[in-house]
Amino acid sequence: MRNIALIVSYDGTSYHGWQCQPNLRTIEQTLKEGIERIVNHPIKMYSGARTDRGVHAYGQVVSFLTESRVARKGLILGLNSLLPQDIRVIDAVDKDMDFNARYSAKSKLYIYTILNTPYDSPFYTRYTWHIPYPMDTPSMNRAIRYILGAHDFSSFKKKDEVYKSHIREILMAGVKRRGPFIHIFVEGTGFMRYMVRNIVGTITYVGFGKISEADFLSILNAKDRDAAGPTAPAKGLALRRITY
Amino acid sequence: MRNIALIVSYDGTSYHGWQCQPNLRTIEQTLKEGIERIVNHPIKMYSGARTDRGVHAYGQVVSFLTESRVARKGLILGLNSLLPQDIRVIDAVDKDMDFNARYSAKSKLYIYTILNTPYDSPFYTRYTWHIPYPMDTPSMNRAIRYILGAHDFSSFKKKDEVYKSHIREILMAGVKRRGPFIHIFVEGTGFMRYMVRNIVGTITYVGFGKISEADFLSILNAKDRDAAGPTAPAKGLALRRITY
Repeated sequence: MRNIALIVSYDGTSYHGWQCQPNLRTIEQTLKEGIERIVNHPIKMYSGARTDRGVHAYGQVVSFLTESRVARKGLILGLNSLLPQDIRVIDAVDKDMDFNARYSAKSKLYIYTILNTPYDSPFYTRYTWHIPYPMDTPSMNRAIRYILGAHDFSSFKKKDEVYKSHIREILMAGVKRRGPFIHIFVEGTGFMRYMVRNIVGTITYVGFGKISEADFLSILNAKDRDAAGPTAPAKGLALRRITY
Repeated sequence: MRNIALIVSYDGTSYHGWQCQPNLRTIEQTLKEGIERIVNHPIKMYSGARTDRGVHAYGQVVSFLTESRVARKGLILGLNSLLPQDIRVIDAVDKDMDFNARYSAKSKLYIYTILNTPYDSPFYTRYTWHIPYPMDTPSMNRAIRYILGAHDFSSFKKKDEVYKSHIREILMAGVKRRGPFIHIFVEGTGFMRYMVRNIVGTITYVGFGKISEADFLSILNAKDRDAAGPTAPAKGLALRRITY
């Protein structure tokens, strides 16, 4: 028996998110069917993260058990020939039997990208949120550091979603301008649904000067979704890396 | 009467090329219809270049005459709200009456991009040619310099296409690696159909070591399309800039 992990990139534009749903085209379903065709038996597939509809990934990780003897390189090439062009397997590794892409994950790094130019670009429109107004990125970068550490993130969760706990731990957070792009990166041990996009939507208010850095801290402390800003569009968000 | 020039970016993936054709969706037709809706009268539109099916543009230029008094900024915003997301107007300028986007063009810069990684990327597949083999870019960069100056480019034209002259003048040419990308840039006063893509297809043979730099010069001198390599895929090609 082998325990294989794959690193997978995808453009989420044309899918109803990661997770299998009846009668909808999802990335999980598409990938799982591809793997089953190669290894020639049904699999149980675990994944490091579940991305929402329209969200992208550079480094999604999945794992599954198989008795197939397919070589690592053959598995990658075979899968990429079966999969649609917007899903690509970029690596395959044999792991110890106790590795599980879902349960072994230590942290996930998400990067949100804003295209901050007067006019939108046809080349980046699928992967960025276009904001044509001036943004104060140093101020955004100072404000976002308030989320570092363990906090109750109720202000940034999906409105009516219920969890056992609303406490999550953020290991790294920052805002950086690079040419026409503003990158907002957030790494944490776990996330609630829409959490990154709600943080991004609120931090843009700091960028516009609509709220102060201290206001951002008050919003976090309010533990109330209604206190925060809007949910940023899915298309600017990408799962960059999962650390094990 | 005003003579307006627009700079236009587009992702050519979903269009049958630039030039109007009956019953086919082209970029020229889509853009012209948008402008006519804004200025509220039929126009005659000139363009700096005609890109083939699947080819992209960062800096296409068009010009047209109008009596409309629409402000520059209003014209850009109005057009971008009408146009599909894969065509964006990025600038609009009032020009002297003797300016013509087609006839005033002095040179055009094309950039061809190869993604030179073991596996393809879902994010770049629309804009690059994926080549997983090692490529000797310094050698490609030396070979491509043979096209500088005025030459008979019969070896690199579209097979059965006939022109009054096959002589074209190249002002700049080079091959440069940047991270996972190899950029091939060619600037000239004019091009024949498929010329850049045929040059690219042949220069990749130099990159693989399949032919020598001297062989590339012999192919240019042969003035025979059958001597050269294959036509590189359209999706890696982009019109970068037109100089007036």
